[in-house]
Amino acid sequence: MALPKVGWIGLGIMGKPMVRNLLNAGYPLVVWNRSRPAVDLAASWGATPANSAKEVAEQCEIVVTMVPDSPDVQQVVLGPNGIYEGIRPGSVYVDMSTISPMVTKRIAAKLAEKGVQMLDAPVSGGDIGAQRGTLSIMVGGPREAFERCLPLFQILGENIVHAGEENGLGQFVKLCNQTACGLNLLAMVESIALGAKAGLDLEKMLAAITKGAAGSWMLSNLGPKVIAGDWEPGFMVKLQQKDLRLVLEAAASLGLPLPGTALVHQLFRVVEAAGLGEKGTQALAHALERMGNFKIHPDEG
Amino acid sequence: MALPKVGWIGLGIMGKPMVRNLLNAGYPLVVWNRSRPAVDLAASWGATPANSAKEVAEQCEIVVTMVPDSPDVQQVVLGPNGIYEGIRPGSVYVDMSTISPMVTKRIAAKLAEKGVQMLDAPVSGGDIGAQRGTLSIMVGGPREAFERCLPLFQILGENIVHAGEENGLGQFVKLCNQTACGLNLLAMVESIALGAKAGLDLEKMLAAITKGAAGSWMLSNLGPKVIAGDWEPGFMVKLQQKDLRLVLEAAASLGLPLPGTALVHQLFRVVEAAGLGEKGTQALAHALERMGNFKIHPDEG
Repeated sequence: MALPKVGWIGLGIMGKPMVRNLLNAGYPLVVWNRSRPAVDLAASWGATPANSAKEVAEQCEIVVTMVPDSPDVQQVVLGPNGIYEGIRPGSVYVDMSTISPMVTKRIAAKLAEKGVQMLDAPVSGGDIGAQRGTLSIMVGGPREAFERCLPLFQILGENIVHAGEENGLGQFVKLCNQTACGLNLLAMVESIALGAKAGLDLEKMLAAITKGAAGSWMLSNLGPKVIAGDWEPGFMVKLQQKDLRLVLEAAASLGLPLPGTALVHQLFRVVEAAGLGEKGTQALAHALERMGNFKIHPDEG
Repeated sequence: MALPKVGWIGLGIMGKPMVRNLLNAGYPLVVWNRSRPAVDLAASWGATPANSAKEVAEQCEIVVTMVPDSPDVQQVVLGPNGIYEGIRPGSVYVDMSTISPMVTKRIAAKLAEKGVQMLDAPVSGGDIGAQRGTLSIMVGGPREAFERCLPLFQILGENIVHAGEENGLGQFVKLCNQTACGLNLLAMVESIALGAKAGLDLEKMLAAITKGAAGSWMLSNLGPKVIAGDWEPGFMVKLQQKDLRLVLEAAASLGLPLPGTALVHQLFRVVEAAGLGEKGTQALAHALERMGNFKIHPDEG
């Protein structure tokens, strides 16, 4: 059976390696991106370049977006020369960006008017997961559309969960993920800050606590970076902030107080105010250093 | 070589199984406890009962305490008929309770006047770890004393870390552990609260996020309990609160702001105010339910 022609919009740090994996798996791809060099690169790998999102949608039965934020998705779907203008009834639109679940629902309702099903399918696992095809993919939307797109998801990721048939549920799972990530980050940096102020050998401290009830992915993977003074991303502070904003907006729309997540969002603002928005999320440690007027690494500037 | 005679004071939920493991390993033990039935039980296992902490200390070259809090340790060491009155120069005093690092330093200084070395050696792993001999043990104090007590620690635990030669450092490692535990708990319950309010299938949500960057011991082990509505301890809210109080006191003495841990402490107070101080720490979810006026399990009372 021939693989369906897939349209892809958004060739950033995530989109590029995902497109490459699909091309390697034999999918025919039509691509568009706001800036042209990424389109040319994808074309050099075998993708067909297009001149607009509309032009992509006209040619493909599955159309995917992977763009930064809710307004970008709205623009590329509903804006002039957008997906909505080009997409044919019976096609599936898949948004793999992390955006607002409420915006997701509105876009799905609009596309339904044209006989198009939507999946929200945000991912976690970062650029490394995108390169290796090991992303987690959290999907909301009709089962039929999910099953149609599953072979494609299986090229891109490993842990693929269909959260439910309602659009937005995939986004909500992603937001639950980011909520836990944010507070686990704070757990890691408060723990290390306390150890640093107490004069502990921080490597010994981490070795003592990582395997037990205090353990987390953040402690194991980013704790050593904080101790080593390595602030390179990984996942950037400004992207974590975008996701925490989405969490807090969603929680507000549900009438749910999330005091811890609100605090993490504010503490990351301290990091951003210090000009460190493009550092890795482990730079949350800087907020504690600044507030406590100390350095985890006394030798640092 | 004959095993040293060990004195043990404190036969609660932790002390009892630890004593049993030492007796099974062949250690001669002299025991005392504030209430008598636990002493009789330990005697039935082969321990020698004593009538005071002083009487224990007179007979033993290693004296261990495992009691609830800083004032209990002060009382049993420095109070009337306490360890200080009985202990002989050259003996080692080991406090395995979780108490204030500042109080620890003061007691160590007092014992040094009598030629007695002290180790602070708090544990994590709970009553299950105590029963199985799989505790993590975080030790501060002189290397010589640490090496003398290491064979005993190896009966009681698995992950044994000598944090440094200064007294209090073991307590500080434990407090770093509890800091991370508290915020990882909040991560778990805010994430589940958001999922519940959004109408997610919470088991699917946990399956989707547990293995990635959001993962933690708390999410894996206590997340399913929250979802199942199982509030039994595990580790009790009131004990977690005692440990968070120690964290915040220690941080205050170091001039270190820990806004996340302070928030967790306040949110656990909501749980205690609801009369749930003896439930497991996963009951932190109740604070969010109460504040958001909703139930994770709509069928619950």
